[in-house]
Amino acid sequence: MRVIGIDPGIERTGFAILEMQPQGKFKLLDFGRIFTDKKNPFPHRLRSIADDLKVILKQWKPDAAAIEEVFFSKNVRTAIKVSHARGVILEVLEECGVPTRELNPSHIKLSVAGDGRADKLQIRKMLQYLLAVDVKSDDTADAIACGICFLTTKT
Amino acid sequence: MRVIGIDPGIERTGFAILEMQPQGKFKLLDFGRIFTDKKNPFPHRLRSIADDLKVILKQWKPDAAAIEEVFFSKNVRTAIKVSHARGVILEVLEECGVPTRELNPSHIKLSVAGDGRADKLQIRKMLQYLLAVDVKSDDTADAIACGICFLTTKT
Repeated sequence: MRVIGIDPGIERTGFAILEMQPQGKFKLLDFGRIFTDKKNPFPHRLRSIADDLKVILKQWKPDAAAIEEVFFSKNVRTAIKVSHARGVILEVLEECGVPTRELNPSHIKLSVAGDGRADKLQIRKMLQYLLAVDVKSDDTADAIACGICFLTTKT
Repeated sequence: MRVIGIDPGIERTGFAILEMQPQGKFKLLDFGRIFTDKKNPFPHRLRSIADDLKVILKQWKPDAAAIEEVFFSKNVRTAIKVSHARGVILEVLEECGVPTRELNPSHIKLSVAGDGRADKLQIRKMLQYLLAVDVKSDDTADAIACGICFLTTKT
């Protein structure tokens, strides 16, 4: 089972390709970020997210996708922007035949760090422990965590 | 100049195809709504909006698109959902080479009814006067108003 974890955003969308190995270990095949240029108009930025995601899906052919539910208690304006990117991402996944599961943020933290209120540092430390990888960006760390949560959660 | 006015939504997306005639009159070529089925998963609904919009764009080949800015003072949850649909719509317009202008809600009301705080009934009455059409749905009326605002506003 191969999954793509996605942390959507207009400026940066984090992604991670993960597999569960037969021994119950995770294998991180790829991770990175889709960037868009602030100077470009909003529709152009949305399209470049769609185009880049299609390239990643074509390369890695994931069996499923995992994406965080929208979290909007802090900044509504940001949540509105993220939701535009998120809509495009969900549509592209559907178009490419990749079934998507939406995951609750605290569920993701619980499954990765054993604590539904874990902070970003705790998540990164657990990723370092589980995958022996030092992830520098929050977007990528969130995408990996999303993928791990998917692989360890039964539906 | 042919414009498509769009009022985005997950359940219903209103659209209207308008042209400005040489005499300064508006011609309403088509209008309607894109519906999605509540029973379908969210990504499926987003994709059906994209697919249906592509059919409309292919049929009418508008030179430009006009879409309302997101209005989120009332219900954040609704605004988040609308933004997902809106993201997909902006991306499809970009993909189909249709330049998009985002319009302010009060600017739209001002240009159609001469009052930036006009209510839905006032807008409909003005549409009836301008286009001799009795529009029953708010989504469609908003889409038409958006198109008229575009055609009467210089950039």
